[in-house]
Amino acid sequence: MASYTFTYTGIRVKDMDESIAFYTRVLGMRLQFRMKLKKTDGEFALLRSLRGRQRLELNWYKPGTRFAKPYAAGEGLDHLAFRTPHLGEAIRELRKQEIPIVEGPIGDPGGAWAYVEDPNGIWIELIGPLRKKKRKA
Amino acid sequence: MASYTFTYTGIRVKDMDESIAFYTRVLGMRLQFRMKLKKTDGEFALLRSLRGRQRLELNWYKPGTRFAKPYAAGEGLDHLAFRTPHLGEAIRELRKQEIPIVEGPIGDPGGAWAYVEDPNGIWIELIGPLRKKKRKA
Repeated sequence: MASYTFTYTGIRVKDMDESIAFYTRVLGMRLQFRMKLKKTDGEFALLRSLRGRQRLELNWYKPGTRFAKPYAAGEGLDHLAFRTPHLGEAIRELRKQEIPIVEGPIGDPGGAWAYVEDPNGIWIELIGPLRKKKRKA
Repeated sequence: MASYTFTYTGIRVKDMDESIAFYTRVLGMRLQFRMKLKKTDGEFALLRSLRGRQRLELNWYKPGTRFAKPYAAGEGLDHLAFRTPHLGEAIRELRKQEIPIVEGPIGDPGGAWAYVEDPNGIWIELIGPLRKKKRKA
């Protein structure tokens, strides 16, 4: 029987520069590569967090090609989830960067989550404690 | 500065049983857990491939709640990618299971890709060689 390994999630982006800036500058991901693709006359890029093994691919299609359907984020992708060691601090930083929290924080101080939107309208779930964990003496 | 780790991809599904069946029976993922969620009056489930670290969350929202917007897969999620050691064999098996190949195979015999749709209309990219690699004697 055929075997499969889930290897990455590919999202479609409206503007490659803008989305790379969001995922690297706001969410701290590393750009592994960015390439033009002859078949779609577009581009794709691969990103990964400093820690963690999940991979995120960004796909951009040139307007006028059969791939470049009108963009609606839609319901298929519910959200991409990112863990952070201190959600309270992250929310304060996001507000300074004028990135609105579209929902939350929800949960307890020890474990909560909140949502922001990426430049394409894709929901990003941020997960972590609202307060820094106290270290034991 | 806040740090983030990309931890999973959450898709929205139309029917939880149907989507769990697809990702486990067709794509061989393992169901890690399935839980009801009070907040959305819905359910979520976490899946992972036998090998690999990517995690896939399935989200189902109860009709009539504010989360259960009319379902259109949309453009945000371009595709989920799965690697397979023998794409040619995988395609033959999928055809037997009456799962249509919606695009491809594209590429070379040594490295190709093809697309199927999940029960929600989400595109799944399958990547692998069309021929089994010959082992060196």
